[in-house]
Amino acid sequence: MRHLPLTLLAASLMLATGIASAASITTIPAAAVKTAEQLRNKAMHDDTGYRVVASLTTEVGPRMAGSDADPRARAWAIAKFKALGYDKVYTEAVTYPLWVRRSEHGAIVAPFPQSLVLTALGYSAGTPKGGLTAQVVKFDSLAALKAADPASVKGRIVYIGYRMQRHKDGHDYGMGSAVRTAGPVIAASKGAAGYLLRSAGTDANERIAHTGVTGFTDPAKAIPAAALSNPDADQLERVLAYGKPVVVKLDLDCGIVGEYTGANVIGEITGKKYPDQVVAIGGHLDSWDPGTGAIDDGAGVAIAMAAGKLIHDLPQRPDRTIRVIAFANEEMGLWGGKAYAEKHAADVGNFQLGTESDFGSGPVWRMSASVKPEARDAIGQIAKVLAPIGVAYDAKLPGGGGSDLSQMHGKGMAALSLTQDGTDYFDWHHTSNDTLDKIDPQQLAQNIAVYAAFSYMAAQADGDFGSAPGAFAKDGAGE
Amino acid sequence: MRHLPLTLLAASLMLATGIASAASITTIPAAAVKTAEQLRNKAMHDDTGYRVVASLTTEVGPRMAGSDADPRARAWAIAKFKALGYDKVYTEAVTYPLWVRRSEHGAIVAPFPQSLVLTALGYSAGTPKGGLTAQVVKFDSLAALKAADPASVKGRIVYIGYRMQRHKDGHDYGMGSAVRTAGPVIAASKGAAGYLLRSAGTDANERIAHTGVTGFTDPAKAIPAAALSNPDADQLERVLAYGKPVVVKLDLDCGIVGEYTGANVIGEITGKKYPDQVVAIGGHLDSWDPGTGAIDDGAGVAIAMAAGKLIHDLPQRPDRTIRVIAFANEEMGLWGGKAYAEKHAADVGNFQLGTESDFGSGPVWRMSASVKPEARDAIGQIAKVLAPIGVAYDAKLPGGGGSDLSQMHGKGMAALSLTQDGTDYFDWHHTSNDTLDKIDPQQLAQNIAVYAAFSYMAAQADGDFGSAPGAFAKDGAGE
Repeated sequence: MRHLPLTLLAASLMLATGIASAASITTIPAAAVKTAEQLRNKAMHDDTGYRVVASLTTEVGPRMAGSDADPRARAWAIAKFKALGYDKVYTEAVTYPLWVRRSEHGAIVAPFPQSLVLTALGYSAGTPKGGLTAQVVKFDSLAALKAADPASVKGRIVYIGYRMQRHKDGHDYGMGSAVRTAGPVIAASKGAAGYLLRSAGTDANERIAHTGVTGFTDPAKAIPAAALSNPDADQLERVLAYGKPVVVKLDLDCGIVGEYTGANVIGEITGKKYPDQVVAIGGHLDSWDPGTGAIDDGAGVAIAMAAGKLIHDLPQRPDRTIRVIAFANEEMGLWGGKAYAEKHAADVGNFQLGTESDFGSGPVWRMSASVKPEARDAIGQIAKVLAPIGVAYDAKLPGGGGSDLSQMHGKGMAALSLTQDGTDYFDWHHTSNDTLDKIDPQQLAQNIAVYAAFSYMAAQADGDFGSAPGAFAKDGAGE
Repeated sequence: MRHLPLTLLAASLMLATGIASAASITTIPAAAVKTAEQLRNKAMHDDTGYRVVASLTTEVGPRMAGSDADPRARAWAIAKFKALGYDKVYTEAVTYPLWVRRSEHGAIVAPFPQSLVLTALGYSAGTPKGGLTAQVVKFDSLAALKAADPASVKGRIVYIGYRMQRHKDGHDYGMGSAVRTAGPVIAASKGAAGYLLRSAGTDANERIAHTGVTGFTDPAKAIPAAALSNPDADQLERVLAYGKPVVVKLDLDCGIVGEYTGANVIGEITGKKYPDQVVAIGGHLDSWDPGTGAIDDGAGVAIAMAAGKLIHDLPQRPDRTIRVIAFANEEMGLWGGKAYAEKHAADVGNFQLGTESDFGSGPVWRMSASVKPEARDAIGQIAKVLAPIGVAYDAKLPGGGGSDLSQMHGKGMAALSLTQDGTDYFDWHHTSNDTLDKIDPQQLAQNIAVYAAFSYMAAQADGDFGSAPGAFAKDGAGE
């Protein structure tokens, strides 16, 4: 066994520093490192991932959770896993409220009549038949709305004009999405008739609105809520600046119409030594309805599927199982991720390491990890393999596991964060513009190289990364 | 009179070369050149034009010819001319077929059902109630459609996938617009059930369709015709590439519903010496309906209005009248321009010089002219004033007069072409994205500087530029 000398070396070091016992140090065998480098290099010149996302976005297209396209998307995922040669393909049911969008229109009625480009938000209530017509009251921030006297809001359409800023790590989506999720709930609680926001998007000059979920959890308390495109928000603000009462009409035919049971679709490359121990990667299969879900999250599904396929094509199966999960209904509240974590919480110790790709197809530029201290060296070994393709290891940051798999991390799964360049991501996120042409095949391939290499190394590790019930509560997981 | 020495110099030159008699040489007096330079410099730092286009796009917004917004746009123009202090404001009726757009939807029905972003084209027929569902037949070019056997087209939806290329002078719109205007007519003549094109736009990655007029002149021969956004055209082509029959459903509620009488709105700064002789500038007041018509052609209206206003603000009125025309219904076939030329053809000799701005707000980088040879020196004087703000004079090219005023040029009006940088123009042209944020105030100001300076110099010229019935037929005008 080629890894023994390394383990012995580690043992000597540990004895010398007294940090931990030799037995608990996790390492990646040299042969596995070498294979991971080969996987990485092959992935950089492989188009499997691009063909997968082209297939999904062309053959299924938009696939909002619970829509007519939902079963077609699941059938596509099952067929694609099988076509790629996955050893085991199965589904796990996920049940959630069914929200539908039938039509959406908006217009300034007075003082300057003209239509508005907008899109209803997830869990928005529909307007009464004939539409909702009310005066607009503007707030510059969520904080201003929170502080507002309910009398100034009651019966009005609240508008918040927060302008989301462009950043490589996309961090301004924190505030952008808060205006979209918390804003409508606060407005409703103060008696507002409706809610509008400037789209949480960085495409300042595109007449395309960004949808996304609200924080409404009780349909009885929901009000009509929609996002304006950035130029329409500019226009509304210019009209408001005339100082006359501004009346807007919203005509949103949408709402919750019951419950729906979809499924997470799962494909596995079965481990030959520890088949029950899994490296969990994935993306989410659902998309919002206006686009074809290329960057959100066809890319993530393709990255994980193609990474697994590359490991499948090795001469022999990895020691542990590579589990690729195409999650159901991430968009309306991590329903697939939550159902998955609920079902597998007791089993969290078998999850070697995991993370999900859900930030488009920009290259991975940073890795961070939430693992036990004794697995830090192994993470360093992974980092060394990823460094030549532009990934910097930040040992100070925790790893979050991505969107749906954050829920398993919350249960105690050791997790990475593989941070992608999201400079352009919020130009297209949750819009009709989320289409295949936004994906750079070479950047997608870099992601696949990262996922294939790390997954394989984790699967071959001597030792684990610290997954255990509640293991990472100190990193903020599971709160 | 300060211009006499110049005239004498010109006379000597002419006598030497024998080209023309001294009496017929047109020149711009030195005082007028100096005033034009001052107008140019002032315009470069004046925001009147930007405020005009902001007012039009905010207070009226979309203003398709014959729509509810048409009378509001006219009322706006009349009020704005008056507010700017124009001496005379009036309208001249323009009658044209009234085409309306009520709604438009499209979808791939088979083999991969999904909706398409498209927009109906001007004079398109509506589809039958319940929509038109037919198989798609693709052609790579207009030439290929022309050559097609009608049997291959009959009952089908013809699709042409011409990709319009980006150029500073926008010349590829020649082919792009031909695919949109001639394509549907040819398809209809061969028995096609419907027509789709890849949008005539350079925004290769925007999910926004470009409308525009077709060549249908007889409603009885029109078929449903629409433009797909570029990413939707990509998608349709990917679906077609699977080699299975592709069925598309079009649901267009649009068509000609009668006749409408709108008007050209005209404002004048009255000439003090030759009030009946006019320098004609302008833009078109109508826009397509999805956008707010900022670049097409709020900019043109604003450039001309603001140029006139700068001349109005001089200590005294110019020698000749500055006539600013906000044309009706340019978009559906130069109706305003044709009506204007019809009405004023007999009077063409009184049109000193003219040109219209209708190519967005990119800076003017080239000037060319169709004038009599004896006015070439005066054009050279204008060129010298415009050179410091980036305008190069091309003495070899003719001047066309712009879109609507090309019709007066066709009757014999001496005309300039003031070519703007249109690198980005076809990203937004005829789309919902034609909004105020696309206008750079400084670039708009440069245009106003050009129009103010040339208009003033033409108004003050000693002599004319050769306008006469049929004068420029040799340049291709009036064909």
